[in-house]
Amino acid sequence: MSVIAELSIFPMDKGDSVSPYVKRVLGVIRSSGLMFQLNPMGTVMEGEWDDVMNTVSACYRELETDCDRIYMTLKVDARRGREYGMLSKVAAVE
Amino acid sequence: MSVIAELSIFPMDKGDSVSPYVKRVLGVIRSSGLMFQLNPMGTVMEGEWDDVMNTVSACYRELETDCDRIYMTLKVDARRGREYGMLSKVAAVE
Amino acid sequence: MSVIAELSIFPMDKGDSVSPYVKRVLGVIRSSGLMFQLNPMGTVMEGEWDDVMNTVSACYRELETDCDRIYMTLKVDARRGREYGMLSKVAAVE
Amino acid sequence: MSVIAELSIFPMDKGDSVSPYVKRVLGVIRSSGLMFQLNPMGTVMEGEWDDVMNTVSACYRELETDCDRIYMTLKVDARRGREYGMLSKVAAVE
Repeated sequence: MSVIAELSIFPMDKGDSVSPYVKRVLGVIRSSGLMFQLNPMGTVMEGEWDDVMNTVSACYRELETDCDRIYMTLKVDARRGREYGMLSKVAAVE
Repeated sequence: MSVIAELSIFPMDKGDSVSPYVKRVLGVIRSSGLMFQLNPMGTVMEGEWDDVMNTVSACYRELETDCDRIYMTLKVDARRGREYGMLSKVAAVE
Repeated sequence: MSVIAELSIFPMDKGDSVSPYVKRVLGVIRSSGLMFQLNPMGTVMEGEWDDVMNTVSACYRELETDCDRIYMTLKVDARRGREYGMLSKVAAVE
Repeated sequence: MSVIAELSIFPMDKGDSVSPYVKRVLGVIRSSGLMFQLNPMGTVMEGEWDDVMNTVSACYRELETDCDRIYMTLKVDARRGREYGMLSKVAAVE
Protein backbone atom coordinates (compact mmCIF):
# COMPACT_ATOMS: atom_id res chain seq x y z
CA MET A 1 0.00 0.00 0.00
CA SER A 2 1.12 3.56 -0.65
CA VAL A 3 0.68 5.36 2.64
CA ILE A 4 0.40 9.15 2.53
CA ALA A 5 0.32 10.75 5.97
CA GLU A 6 0.08 14.33 7.15
CA LEU A 7 1.59 14.99 10.56
CA SER A 8 1.08 18.04 12.77
CA ILE A 9 2.80 17.91 16.14
CA PHE A 10 3.69 20.63 18.64
CA PRO A 11 4.16 21.19 22.38
CA MET A 12 1.34 22.75 24.39
CA ASP A 13 3.56 23.83 27.29
CA LYS A 14 5.97 26.15 25.48
CA GLY A 15 3.82 29.17 24.69
CA ASP A 16 2.45 30.08 21.30
CA SER A 17 5.73 30.26 19.39
CA VAL A 18 6.31 26.62 18.59
CA SER A 19 8.43 26.96 15.45
CA PRO A 20 11.73 25.88 17.11
CA TYR A 21 10.02 22.60 17.99
CA VAL A 22 8.48 22.15 14.56
CA LYS A 23 11.96 22.75 13.11
CA ARG A 24 13.32 19.85 15.14
CA VAL A 25 10.45 17.62 14.01
CA LEU A 26 11.17 18.55 10.41
CA GLY A 27 14.79 17.55 10.94
CA VAL A 28 13.65 14.11 12.05
CA ILE A 29 11.43 13.74 8.98
CA ARG A 30 14.22 14.94 6.70
CA SER A 31 16.63 12.33 8.08
CA SER A 32 14.03 9.55 7.62
CA GLY A 33 14.65 9.37 3.91
CA LEU A 34 10.90 9.44 3.19
CA MET A 35 9.52 11.69 0.50
CA PHE A 36 7.93 14.63 2.28
CA GLN A 37 6.39 18.05 1.65
CA LEU A 38 5.86 20.83 4.18
CA ASN A 39 2.70 22.95 4.17
CA PRO A 40 1.44 25.66 6.55
CA MET A 41 -0.59 23.15 8.61
CA GLY A 42 1.61 20.04 8.64
CA THR A 43 4.06 17.84 6.80
CA VAL A 44 2.93 15.24 4.28
CA MET A 45 5.04 12.08 3.92
CA GLU A 46 4.77 9.00 1.75
CA GLY A 47 6.09 5.49 2.21
CA GLU A 48 5.31 2.05 3.55
CA TRP A 49 3.18 1.90 6.70
CA ASP A 50 6.01 0.84 9.03
CA ASP A 51 8.42 3.47 7.71
CA VAL A 52 5.85 6.23 8.06
CA MET A 53 4.80 5.18 11.56
CA ASN A 54 8.39 4.77 12.73
CA THR A 55 9.03 8.33 11.55
CA VAL A 56 5.95 9.59 13.39
CA SER A 57 7.23 7.88 16.54
CA ALA A 58 10.68 9.39 16.08
CA CYS A 59 9.09 12.86 15.85
CA TYR A 60 7.17 12.25 19.06
CA ARG A 61 10.30 10.97 20.85
CA GLU A 62 12.20 14.08 19.74
CA LEU A 63 9.67 16.39 21.44
CA GLU A 64 9.23 14.10 24.43
CA THR A 65 12.81 14.85 25.51
CA ASP A 66 11.92 18.36 26.74
CA CYS A 67 8.17 18.86 26.36
CA ASP A 68 5.64 17.93 29.03
CA ARG A 69 2.54 18.18 26.86
CA ILE A 70 2.36 17.33 23.17
CA TYR A 71 -0.53 17.60 20.73
CA MET A 72 -0.54 15.68 17.49
CA THR A 73 -2.87 15.05 14.58
CA LEU A 74 -2.18 12.48 11.89
CA LYS A 75 -4.24 11.99 8.76
CA VAL A 76 -3.56 8.94 6.59
CA ASP A 77 -4.71 7.92 3.11
CA ALA A 78 -3.50 4.43 2.15
CA ARG A 79 -4.15 2.97 -1.30
CA ARG A 80 -3.07 -0.31 -2.83
CA GLY A 81 -1.08 -0.09 -6.05
CA ARG A 82 -0.71 3.70 -6.06
CA GLU A 83 2.67 5.09 -7.05
CA TYR A 84 4.03 8.56 -6.48
CA GLY A 85 0.83 9.27 -4.60
CA MET A 86 1.86 12.69 -3.34
CA LEU A 87 2.27 13.84 -6.92
CA SER A 88 -0.58 11.89 -8.51
CA LYS A 89 -3.20 12.97 -5.95
CA VAL A 90 -2.54 16.64 -6.59
CA ALA A 91 -2.29 16.16 -10.37
CA ALA A 92 -5.66 14.37 -10.43
CA VAL A 93 -7.59 17.35 -9.11
CA GLU A 94 -5.77 20.32 -10.57
CA MET B 1 -7.10 37.15 13.59
CA SER B 2 -5.35 35.43 10.71
CA VAL B 3 -7.19 32.15 10.24
CA ILE B 4 -5.34 29.38 8.42
CA ALA B 5 -7.51 26.34 7.76
CA GLU B 6 -6.85 23.02 6.08
CA LEU B 7 -9.92 21.37 4.59
CA SER B 8 -10.27 17.74 3.46
CA ILE B 9 -13.72 16.77 2.22
CA PHE B 10 -14.92 13.85 0.10
CA PRO B 11 -17.96 11.63 -0.46
CA MET B 12 -18.07 8.19 1.16
CA ASP B 13 -20.74 6.80 -1.18
CA LYS B 14 -19.00 7.19 -4.53
CA GLY B 15 -16.31 4.49 -4.38
CA ASP B 16 -12.62 5.08 -3.87
CA SER B 17 -12.00 7.42 -6.81
CA VAL B 18 -13.09 10.71 -5.35
CA SER B 19 -11.00 13.10 -7.44
CA PRO B 20 -13.93 14.42 -9.56
CA TYR B 21 -15.55 15.55 -6.30
CA VAL B 22 -12.37 17.05 -4.92
CA LYS B 23 -12.01 18.93 -8.21
CA ARG B 24 -15.43 20.51 -7.71
CA VAL B 25 -14.53 21.47 -4.14
CA LEU B 26 -11.33 23.05 -5.39
CA GLY B 27 -13.38 25.07 -7.87
CA VAL B 28 -15.45 26.45 -5.00
CA ILE B 29 -12.32 27.41 -3.07
CA ARG B 30 -10.77 28.98 -6.16
CA SER B 31 -13.83 31.16 -6.71
CA SER B 32 -13.84 32.29 -3.05
CA GLY B 33 -10.99 34.71 -3.61
CA LEU B 34 -9.16 33.39 -0.53
CA MET B 35 -5.46 32.64 -0.70
CA PHE B 36 -5.17 28.86 -0.88
CA GLN B 37 -2.66 26.09 -1.48
CA LEU B 38 -3.39 22.49 -2.43
CA ASN B 39 -1.43 19.59 -0.92
CA PRO B 40 -1.86 15.80 -1.22
CA MET B 41 -4.01 15.61 1.93
CA GLY B 42 -6.10 18.77 1.75
CA THR B 43 -6.33 22.42 0.82
CA VAL B 44 -4.97 25.17 3.07
CA MET B 45 -6.72 28.55 3.00
CA GLU B 46 -6.16 31.82 4.81
CA GLY B 47 -8.51 34.67 5.61
CA GLU B 48 -10.89 36.08 8.18
CA TRP B 49 -12.91 33.54 10.18
CA ASP B 50 -16.23 34.28 8.47
CA ASP B 51 -14.76 34.16 4.97
CA VAL B 52 -13.02 30.86 5.65
CA MET B 53 -16.07 29.27 7.24
CA ASN B 54 -18.39 30.50 4.49
CA THR B 55 -16.06 28.86 1.97
CA VAL B 56 -16.06 25.61 3.96
CA SER B 57 -19.88 25.70 3.94
CA ALA B 58 -19.94 26.37 0.19
CA CYS B 59 -17.70 23.30 -0.34
CA TYR B 60 -20.06 21.16 1.72
CA ARG B 61 -23.12 22.48 -0.14
CA GLU B 62 -21.45 21.67 -3.46
CA LEU B 63 -21.05 17.99 -2.51
CA GLU B 64 -24.43 17.81 -0.78
CA THR B 65 -26.16 18.27 -4.15
CA ASP B 66 -25.37 14.70 -5.25
CA CYS B 67 -23.60 12.90 -2.38
CA ASP B 68 -25.44 11.02 0.35
CA ARG B 69 -22.51 10.65 2.71
CA ILE B 70 -19.74 13.19 3.18
CA TYR B 71 -16.63 13.04 5.37
CA MET B 72 -14.76 16.19 6.28
CA THR B 73 -11.83 17.20 8.46
CA LEU B 74 -10.92 20.80 9.16
CA LYS B 75 -7.83 21.94 11.04
CA VAL B 76 -7.57 25.61 12.04
CA ASP B 77 -4.72 27.72 13.40
CA ALA B 78 -5.83 31.29 14.24
CA ARG B 79 -3.36 33.89 15.42
CA ARG B 80 -3.85 37.55 16.23
CA GLY B 81 -1.70 40.01 14.32
CA ARG B 82 -0.14 37.45 11.96
CA GLU B 83 0.20 38.48 8.33
CA TYR B 84 0.79 36.27 5.32
CA GLY B 85 0.56 33.35 7.69
CA MET B 86 0.67 30.65 5.03
CA LEU B 87 4.04 31.95 3.93
CA SER B 88 5.45 32.96 7.31
CA LYS B 89 4.62 29.66 9.03
CA VAL B 90 6.55 27.65 6.46
CA ALA B 91 9.43 30.15 6.36
CA ALA B 92 9.78 29.99 10.16
CA VAL B 93 10.58 26.30 10.21
CA GLU B 94 12.53 25.74 7.02
CA MET C 1 -28.54 15.52 6.11
CA SER C 2 -27.70 14.43 9.64
CA VAL C 3 -24.45 16.18 10.47
CA ILE C 4 -22.35 14.71 13.27
CA ALA C 5 -19.33 16.83 14.14
CA GLU C 6 -16.55 16.45 16.67
CA LEU C 7 -14.97 19.70 17.80
CA SER C 8 -11.67 20.15 19.64
CA ILE C 9 -10.67 23.75 20.29
CA PHE C 10 -8.18 25.29 22.71
CA PRO C 11 -5.84 28.29 23.09
CA MET C 12 -2.14 27.84 22.37
CA ASP C 13 -1.05 30.93 24.30
CA LYS C 14 -2.33 30.06 27.78
CA GLY C 15 0.05 27.29 28.87
CA ASP C 16 -0.78 23.64 29.08
CA SER C 17 -3.76 23.84 31.42
CA VAL C 18 -6.53 24.70 29.03
CA SER C 19 -9.51 23.27 30.91
CA PRO C 20 -10.98 26.68 31.93
CA TYR C 21 -11.19 27.52 28.22
CA VAL C 22 -12.64 24.17 27.26
CA LYS C 23 -15.23 24.69 30.01
CA ARG C 24 -16.34 27.96 28.39
CA VAL C 25 -16.55 26.26 24.99
CA LEU C 26 -18.68 23.53 26.50
CA GLY C 27 -20.99 26.20 27.91
CA VAL C 28 -21.49 27.59 24.41
CA ILE C 29 -22.29 24.13 23.04
CA ARG C 30 -24.67 23.45 25.93
CA SER C 31 -26.59 26.64 25.24
CA SER C 32 -26.88 25.83 21.51
CA GLY C 33 -29.64 23.32 22.11
CA LEU C 34 -27.85 20.72 19.92
CA MET C 35 -27.52 17.14 21.07
CA PHE C 36 -23.93 16.73 22.23
CA GLN C 37 -21.62 14.32 24.00
CA LEU C 38 -18.27 15.10 25.60
CA ASN C 39 -15.31 12.71 25.32
CA PRO C 40 -11.66 13.02 26.41
CA MET C 41 -10.56 14.35 23.00
CA GLY C 42 -13.46 16.56 21.94
CA THR C 43 -17.18 17.17 21.89
CA VAL C 44 -19.49 15.43 19.42
CA MET C 45 -22.61 17.31 18.29
CA GLU C 46 -25.43 16.47 15.92
CA GLY C 47 -27.78 18.68 13.94
CA GLU C 48 -28.34 20.43 10.65
CA TRP C 49 -25.22 21.79 8.92
CA ASP C 50 -25.99 25.47 9.62
CA ASP C 51 -26.81 24.87 13.28
CA VAL C 52 -23.63 22.86 13.83
CA MET C 53 -21.43 25.40 12.02
CA ASN C 54 -23.01 28.35 13.82
CA THR C 55 -22.21 26.62 17.10
CA VAL C 56 -18.62 26.01 16.01
CA SER C 57 -18.33 29.71 15.16
CA ALA C 58 -19.80 30.70 18.51
CA CYS C 59 -17.17 28.53 20.25
CA TYR C 60 -14.40 30.21 18.28
CA ARG C 61 -15.78 33.69 19.05
CA GLU C 62 -15.91 32.83 22.76
CA LEU C 63 -12.16 32.05 22.83
CA GLU C 64 -11.28 34.90 20.49
CA THR C 65 -12.30 37.40 23.18
CA ASP C 66 -9.17 36.75 25.24
CA CYS C 67 -6.95 34.27 23.34
CA ASP C 68 -4.33 35.32 20.81
CA ARG C 69 -3.74 31.90 19.31
CA ILE C 70 -6.37 29.19 18.89
CA TYR C 71 -6.05 25.66 17.54
CA MET C 72 -9.08 23.75 16.35
CA THR C 73 -9.88 20.45 14.71
CA LEU C 74 -13.31 19.56 13.38
CA LYS C 75 -14.30 16.16 12.03
CA VAL C 76 -17.66 15.83 10.27
CA ASP C 77 -19.68 12.83 9.10
CA ALA C 78 -22.84 13.86 7.20
CA ARG C 79 -25.36 11.30 5.99
CA ARG C 80 -28.67 11.75 4.25
CA GLY C 81 -31.69 10.24 5.95
CA ARG C 82 -29.90 9.18 9.12
CA GLU C 83 -31.73 9.74 12.40
CA TYR C 84 -30.33 9.80 15.89
CA GLY C 85 -26.92 9.33 14.30
CA MET C 86 -24.93 9.74 17.50
CA LEU C 87 -26.78 6.79 18.98
CA SER C 88 -27.14 4.67 15.85
CA LYS C 89 -23.48 4.90 14.83
CA VAL C 90 -22.30 3.57 18.17
CA ALA C 91 -25.02 0.91 18.30
CA ALA C 92 -24.05 -0.36 14.83
CA VAL C 93 -20.53 -1.31 15.83
CA GLU C 94 -20.91 -2.49 19.41
CA MET D 1 3.76 10.23 29.43
CA SER D 2 0.05 9.46 29.46
CA VAL D 3 -0.93 9.18 25.80
CA ILE D 4 -4.60 9.64 24.95
CA ALA D 5 -5.38 8.96 21.30
CA GLU D 6 -8.56 9.07 19.28
CA LEU D 7 -8.59 6.82 16.24
CA SER D 8 -11.01 6.93 13.29
CA ILE D 9 -10.31 4.44 10.53
CA PHE D 10 -12.48 3.11 7.71
CA PRO D 11 -12.23 1.77 4.14
CA MET D 12 -13.01 4.11 1.24
CA ASP D 13 -13.65 1.31 -1.27
CA LYS D 14 -16.53 -0.51 0.41
CA GLY D 15 -19.43 1.91 -0.04
CA ASP D 16 -20.93 4.09 2.63
CA SER D 17 -21.85 1.37 5.14
CA VAL D 18 -18.57 0.83 6.89
CA SER D 19 -19.80 -0.46 10.25
CA PRO D 20 -18.70 -4.10 9.67
CA TYR D 21 -15.15 -2.80 9.24
CA VAL D 22 -15.34 -0.50 12.25
CA LYS D 23 -16.59 -3.49 14.26
CA ARG D 24 -13.45 -5.44 13.35
CA VAL D 25 -11.27 -2.48 14.30
CA LEU D 26 -13.04 -2.27 17.64
CA GLY D 27 -12.30 -5.96 18.18
CA VAL D 28 -8.60 -5.27 17.70
CA ILE D 29 -8.72 -2.39 20.20
CA ARG D 30 -10.66 -4.51 22.67
CA SER D 31 -8.07 -7.29 22.54
CA SER D 32 -5.21 -4.79 23.06
CA GLY D 33 -5.92 -4.50 26.76
CA LEU D 34 -5.78 -0.70 26.59
CA MET D 35 -8.42 1.38 28.30
CA PHE D 36 -10.73 2.63 25.54
CA GLN D 37 -14.01 4.42 24.98
CA LEU D 38 -16.10 4.45 21.80
CA ASN D 39 -17.85 7.63 20.62
CA PRO D 40 -19.83 8.40 17.43
CA MET D 41 -16.73 9.77 15.64
CA GLY D 42 -13.93 7.49 16.83
CA THR D 43 -12.45 5.46 19.64
CA VAL D 44 -10.37 7.03 22.41
CA MET D 45 -7.59 4.93 23.97
CA GLU D 46 -5.06 5.59 26.71
CA GLY D 47 -1.68 4.03 27.39
CA GLU D 48 2.04 4.32 26.78
CA TRP D 49 3.09 5.62 23.35
CA ASP D 50 4.34 2.28 22.04
CA ASP D 51 1.26 0.37 23.20
CA VAL D 52 -1.09 2.91 21.63
CA MET D 53 0.82 3.04 18.34
CA ASN D 54 1.11 -0.75 18.14
CA THR D 55 -2.65 -0.93 18.54
CA VAL D 56 -3.17 1.68 15.81
CA SER D 57 -0.93 -0.40 13.53
CA ALA D 58 -2.85 -3.58 14.36
CA CYS D 59 -6.10 -1.80 13.40
CA TYR D 60 -4.60 -0.75 10.08
CA ARG D 61 -3.28 -4.27 9.39
CA GLU D 62 -6.73 -5.70 10.12
CA LEU D 63 -8.34 -3.56 7.39
CA GLU D 64 -5.41 -3.93 5.00
CA THR D 65 -6.25 -7.63 4.63
CA ASP D 66 -9.28 -6.92 2.42
CA CYS D 67 -9.48 -3.16 1.83
CA ASP D 68 -7.73 -1.39 -1.04
CA ARG D 69 -8.15 2.14 0.27
CA ILE D 70 -8.14 3.16 3.92
CA TYR D 71 -8.66 6.58 5.52
CA MET D 72 -7.51 7.26 9.04
CA THR D 73 -7.32 10.18 11.43
CA LEU D 74 -5.50 10.04 14.74
CA LYS D 75 -5.51 12.78 17.36
CA VAL D 76 -3.11 12.50 20.28
CA ASP D 77 -2.78 14.40 23.57
CA ALA D 78 0.28 13.32 25.57
CA ARG D 79 1.00 14.71 29.03
CA ARG D 80 3.72 13.88 31.49
CA GLY D 81 2.60 12.73 34.92
CA ARG D 82 -1.10 12.56 34.13
CA GLU D 83 -3.01 9.58 35.48
CA TYR D 84 -6.37 8.25 34.42
CA GLY D 85 -6.34 10.93 31.74
CA MET D 86 -9.50 9.78 29.98
CA LEU D 87 -11.42 10.29 33.20
CA SER D 88 -9.61 13.36 34.52
CA LYS D 89 -9.83 15.34 31.27
CA VAL D 90 -13.60 15.01 31.15
CA ALA D 91 -14.00 15.66 34.88
CA ALA D 92 -11.94 18.87 34.61
CA VAL D 93 -14.34 20.54 32.22
CA GLU D 94 -17.73 19.29 33.31
